[in-house]
Amino acid sequence: MSDTTRADGRTPGQLRPVTIERGWSKQAEGSALISFGDTRVLCTASFTNGVPRWMTGQGKGWVTAEYSMLPRATNSRSDREAVKGRIGGRTHEISRLIGRSLRAVVDFKALGENTIVLDCDVLQADGGTRTASITGAYVALADALEWGRAQGFIGKKAQPLSDSVSAISVGIVGEEPMLDLAYVEDSRAGTDMNVVVTGSGKFIEVQGTAEGAPFDRDELNTLLDLALVGTTELAEIQRAVLA
Amino acid sequence: MSDTTRADGRTPGQLRPVTIERGWSKQAEGSALISFGDTRVLCTASFTNGVPRWMTGQGKGWVTAEYSMLPRATNSRSDREAVKGRIGGRTHEISRLIGRSLRAVVDFKALGENTIVLDCDVLQADGGTRTASITGAYVALADALEWGRAQGFIGKKAQPLSDSVSAISVGIVGEEPMLDLAYVEDSRAGTDMNVVVTGSGKFIEVQGTAEGAPFDRDELNTLLDLALVGTTELAEIQRAVLA
Amino acid sequence: MSDTTRADGRTPGQLRPVTIERGWSKQAEGSALISFGDTRVLCTASFTNGVPRWMTGQGKGWVTAEYSMLPRATNSRSDREAVKGRIGGRTHEISRLIGRSLRAVVDFKALGENTIVLDCDVLQADGGTRTASITGAYVALADALEWGRAQGFIGKKAQPLSDSVSAISVGIVGEEPMLDLAYVEDSRAGTDMNVVVTGSGKFIEVQGTAEGAPFDRDELNTLLDLALVGTTELAEIQRAVLA
Amino acid sequence: MSDTTRADGRTPGQLRPVTIERGWSKQAEGSALISFGDTRVLCTASFTNGVPRWMTGQGKGWVTAEYSMLPRATNSRSDREAVKGRIGGRTHEISRLIGRSLRAVVDFKALGENTIVLDCDVLQADGGTRTASITGAYVALADALEWGRAQGFIGKKAQPLSDSVSAISVGIVGEEPMLDLAYVEDSRAGTDMNVVVTGSGKFIEVQGTAEGAPFDRDELNTLLDLALVGTTELAEIQRAVLA
Amino acid sequence: MSDTTRADGRTPGQLRPVTIERGWSKQAEGSALISFGDTRVLCTASFTNGVPRWMTGQGKGWVTAEYSMLPRATNSRSDREAVKGRIGGRTHEISRLIGRSLRAVVDFKALGENTIVLDCDVLQADGGTRTASITGAYVALADALEWGRAQGFIGKKAQPLSDSVSAISVGIVGEEPMLDLAYVEDSRAGTDMNVVVTGSGKFIEVQGTAEGAPFDRDELNTLLDLALVGTTELAEIQRAVLA
Amino acid sequence: MSDTTRADGRTPGQLRPVTIERGWSKQAEGSALISFGDTRVLCTASFTNGVPRWMTGQGKGWVTAEYSMLPRATNSRSDREAVKGRIGGRTHEISRLIGRSLRAVVDFKALGENTIVLDCDVLQADGGTRTASITGAYVALADALEWGRAQGFIGKKAQPLSDSVSAISVGIVGEEPMLDLAYVEDSRAGTDMNVVVTGSGKFIEVQGTAEGAPFDRDELNTLLDLALVGTTELAEIQRAVLA
Repeated sequence: MSDTTRADGRTPGQLRPVTIERGWSKQAEGSALISFGDTRVLCTASFTNGVPRWMTGQGKGWVTAEYSMLPRATNSRSDREAVKGRIGGRTHEISRLIGRSLRAVVDFKALGENTIVLDCDVLQADGGTRTASITGAYVALADALEWGRAQGFIGKKAQPLSDSVSAISVGIVGEEPMLDLAYVEDSRAGTDMNVVVTGSGKFIEVQGTAEGAPFDRDELNTLLDLALVGTTELAEIQRAVLA
Repeated sequence: MSDTTRADGRTPGQLRPVTIERGWSKQAEGSALISFGDTRVLCTASFTNGVPRWMTGQGKGWVTAEYSMLPRATNSRSDREAVKGRIGGRTHEISRLIGRSLRAVVDFKALGENTIVLDCDVLQADGGTRTASITGAYVALADALEWGRAQGFIGKKAQPLSDSVSAISVGIVGEEPMLDLAYVEDSRAGTDMNVVVTGSGKFIEVQGTAEGAPFDRDELNTLLDLALVGTTELAEIQRAVLA
Repeated sequence: MSDTTRADGRTPGQLRPVTIERGWSKQAEGSALISFGDTRVLCTASFTNGVPRWMTGQGKGWVTAEYSMLPRATNSRSDREAVKGRIGGRTHEISRLIGRSLRAVVDFKALGENTIVLDCDVLQADGGTRTASITGAYVALADALEWGRAQGFIGKKAQPLSDSVSAISVGIVGEEPMLDLAYVEDSRAGTDMNVVVTGSGKFIEVQGTAEGAPFDRDELNTLLDLALVGTTELAEIQRAVLA
Repeated sequence: MSDTTRADGRTPGQLRPVTIERGWSKQAEGSALISFGDTRVLCTASFTNGVPRWMTGQGKGWVTAEYSMLPRATNSRSDREAVKGRIGGRTHEISRLIGRSLRAVVDFKALGENTIVLDCDVLQADGGTRTASITGAYVALADALEWGRAQGFIGKKAQPLSDSVSAISVGIVGEEPMLDLAYVEDSRAGTDMNVVVTGSGKFIEVQGTAEGAPFDRDELNTLLDLALVGTTELAEIQRAVLA
Repeated sequence: MSDTTRADGRTPGQLRPVTIERGWSKQAEGSALISFGDTRVLCTASFTNGVPRWMTGQGKGWVTAEYSMLPRATNSRSDREAVKGRIGGRTHEISRLIGRSLRAVVDFKALGENTIVLDCDVLQADGGTRTASITGAYVALADALEWGRAQGFIGKKAQPLSDSVSAISVGIVGEEPMLDLAYVEDSRAGTDMNVVVTGSGKFIEVQGTAEGAPFDRDELNTLLDLALVGTTELAEIQRAVLA
Repeated sequence: MSDTTRADGRTPGQLRPVTIERGWSKQAEGSALISFGDTRVLCTASFTNGVPRWMTGQGKGWVTAEYSMLPRATNSRSDREAVKGRIGGRTHEISRLIGRSLRAVVDFKALGENTIVLDCDVLQADGGTRTASITGAYVALADALEWGRAQGFIGKKAQPLSDSVSAISVGIVGEEPMLDLAYVEDSRAGTDMNVVVTGSGKFIEVQGTAEGAPFDRDELNTLLDLALVGTTELAEIQRAVLA
């Protein structure tokens, strides 16, 4: 990692300012308005006692996620998917990633027959919307689980969360590996990676894509190192917010 | 109007606290995060130079609006319309109302061949989402028009806005006419009316509905009087915010 | 109201010729082919014993409505909504208005656990399709209720209808308030209002829209007076047809 | 053909009463309200000068058709295809059949670059809706072509129609071949055939289906003989109506 | 039938080489990869014990079919119907034809409360895809029924198949009646007929269409004669494959 | 890597038998029927001279991909996405992955203003359908490019392919890292990774997912080593097939 300075003054291995406004919504059982710099995502967790019919009677719960962007979250307005009448591929892909990432730290037996839907709505987008979504959704999820426990839907001693989870993007911009890409960096990145990591530093998901030239094993390793710097810091922020 | 006190301590003729955070979005040409009590709507105005093909060459612009609610804006989660693959009747109806209301104060000749799309996304709903949307969208629209003027897309002396516009709900709850109904009041209201009014106090839209017993001319008049109290106050707040 | 003569020779406060062909359909439990001048709407009422699952066991019934226009009901052909794969905003809005209007005169306890679907299909359109729909749907509804009573689905002494309901449009064309606007008048109207009124002269719905200049309290009052002239006459025609 | 009497008193080889109300619609360039007994179909022909972009410049026109049933045209109400968001297989199949049948008698060169859309909307259904549609659509088409000639869109001496076209259903009910099946007959028919025939007695379409037992060559021949009796009569009625 | 030689060297009354690869799929209960010359269709039969809810308790089974083409089965690529979000009219029509044709040889009482779905996916298209689909689907169906018998879902002595079924296209190309049209012939055919025939030589479906000039009784008879030559040969091939 | 033997007799680091039937389709400009054991995917490449309008004039081409499964490619039948009217998230995700992977080895300047659509249709699925799709699509793409060169749409000396590309899955089953997972292995895998690699051994895409316990850096490295064994072998097979 060099000491290059970035457009917004950060060093290559530095996160943007991260804020998490816990309990932003009065109505959801858990919620967080998270920002990674100018990226702002409203994450809500909706807790329902019971599970879909096909899961009933197995003593296990379920967690699912939906991601969406407001039409003017971006620089130019996009048509609403509701108006187009179909969900796009990118939206589907990110919704699935968020769901898988959060499910990886949930013990469904301990959750019991309860369902949690995580909604991540991007109010403003400046790169890293999926990683901010995962990081914020964890906070909303933790609060919804405590709500469920307080209501008696989850056992007093049950531990439905096996760990925390956060996510960050890394990429090679120019020839420089960088952490937490803003939109202008992301659009210039040759290799782009999203890494989802538990609080104890293990991988849940590693998604690396060569946008330009293919990458080699060394570059992969450098990017993973950088990602772990970011997720360690995010895990710390989550812990502080939930304390 | 009696001196009944309401659940939240208001008098029948009192608005909930209104806040308008102008320029909430870094990306939209105009934006406002408006709240009527716990109802919070993010309004953005997207300015595009040019008009749809079928309007080209007439020297006139166009303004349109889209309304939507986040899935967990309400007490229990609703399915996303994008996931269902179709826009519901209520959403369509409100989008059309917002569009008509704003167009009523726009001089399309003065706007020139420019298009403005107003997006009103309800982040949290507690009654009055359509009236908050109209009131906030006006602020976003005004800013987008100034942006267009600064860019040279609108003439220096053109006056695309003929007046301001705001909206409020009124209703008869129990036997009491009340201003700016919160959700618990709205769901108990026998008659429910949304009134859209210009800054100079003229009507753009009057929509009164008997949810329970039909209403008579006197009740209609009482409700209109009450609505004008509210819109006068809202017009004042808009003026202050845009000053 | 002046003594201006209109394009079709009517005075400002005069309805177009109204005809209601009761029982037009051999298959529906109630039906009416209504015309307001050249506007012709086929209204059918489909009676089903039972209610949707979510309403079962409450001892109450339900009434709902759907509105549609044949593709060549208008001067130029419109694409079918079935072909486009989605219902448009206007269709949604009118369907909802018809349903609300008819429900306002139904006592759901007296109806019992029965469902009535009102279909209003515009065969030919010349303005006032929504008001003709409401007026005709009332006749179809009344007949379907009698059918349900004859079948024993509704109690012998039950009174599911609390009143009759009819609707009319009024508007300011040029500077003249006019009753029951034909298409050419409607498209020139500055203010346009649809008023739904019970047989006893109370309001169920008042929807006034400024298409051009905003309107003031006096204009609103004049239009309401005019509307009541029309609905009084329509209520009389309904009574005669149902006698 | 035996002398069995049918439920409605007809002999096996007898059509139901056929009426064609030419010019039913004030707005379409051609129209006909046709009834085959209790089956009633409103057929309109919409004439547009010009052709879809992909056909431009070839000096040829186009004719297409759409078929639909009102939701309560039948004994029990069907959901609207617009509400379901998709056209069903049966609707598609019949629309295509009507289009092919009418195109078979049109000379596209003589039509010139003009487009005609035929809409066949079933107001009441009692069997034979597709054959009534074809027979009525021919009348609407003929009138629309005359309108086009009067407007100068079709050459004065051009002969866009090479023949007339009508259609009828035949079937074996019990063991009896019958002409023009009403719904109760159609639902009991073992073999069911729809035959589309030109005014000069040649076949445009023969669609025979074994609903129960497969049929043999003799039965096929008997049904075709019967069909030609019906279409000869229908062609005569069309000629009289258009005279 | 003359002795004209066709583009591919066949005589007018000659089928293309027919191959049926029985049991192509390891997963379906019955399957066949059928080719009529360069037309190749993968037919699978999926056997499910049980019937849709609305059929339960009647002691009868159900058979249904779906047809589709791969996007590049044809000379130029077509958009996928899944991407367009709707099934086209042609697909619907052919799926229905296949389902009807196979149901005509099934005794639903003998099948018992079991459901079979036939999927016919065209991997390569060169004319005759619907007739190849029906012919191949019969083989897949026969195998799925044997599977059901082996599993004990169908009685040991039950005879769910009353006969075999195959289909072929015939048409008049130039002035020559021809059997089993390849794509280049089909696109030039004046009259085009698809004929579905049982193993014992009776008709299940006869669909003749005049693409150009209407056809007369003699032409119809010649085409039917030719079709029976083809289906007799196909029935023989099916018998050999299933032996 | 241990010497455990797998259900199908393979060693942990062994691929299933791979076959590539080049030029399977008579109609596509390039095609390959690829099998990885019982997984069989038909890959076609459709070459179109020209690019979508929004890319015109930049002298660059485009490559895109669509993935789909036949309804009975799997053990139990799935509903068709065309029938459901929408593409599922998994399909979207895989289509995007295939497109990105192939684009990574294409030089769009050398391709010129030409478009290639890759269709990967899974005829039979037994794990690894996305990796087989990428590997087969490369062969189809290479042939389509040669076709384009032969037609003169691509320059004689242009090198539109910068490298080859293949893909393989790896995973930890039990505690054993394994190459090329069959369906039964995949469904039991704790960690599952798809790796897309160029002929020269560099990464295009690395997608690792913890289905059960999160994975650590060592496991990641072991899996990547294993994947490279597989892709080296696949690259060799591709070279042989294209020779």
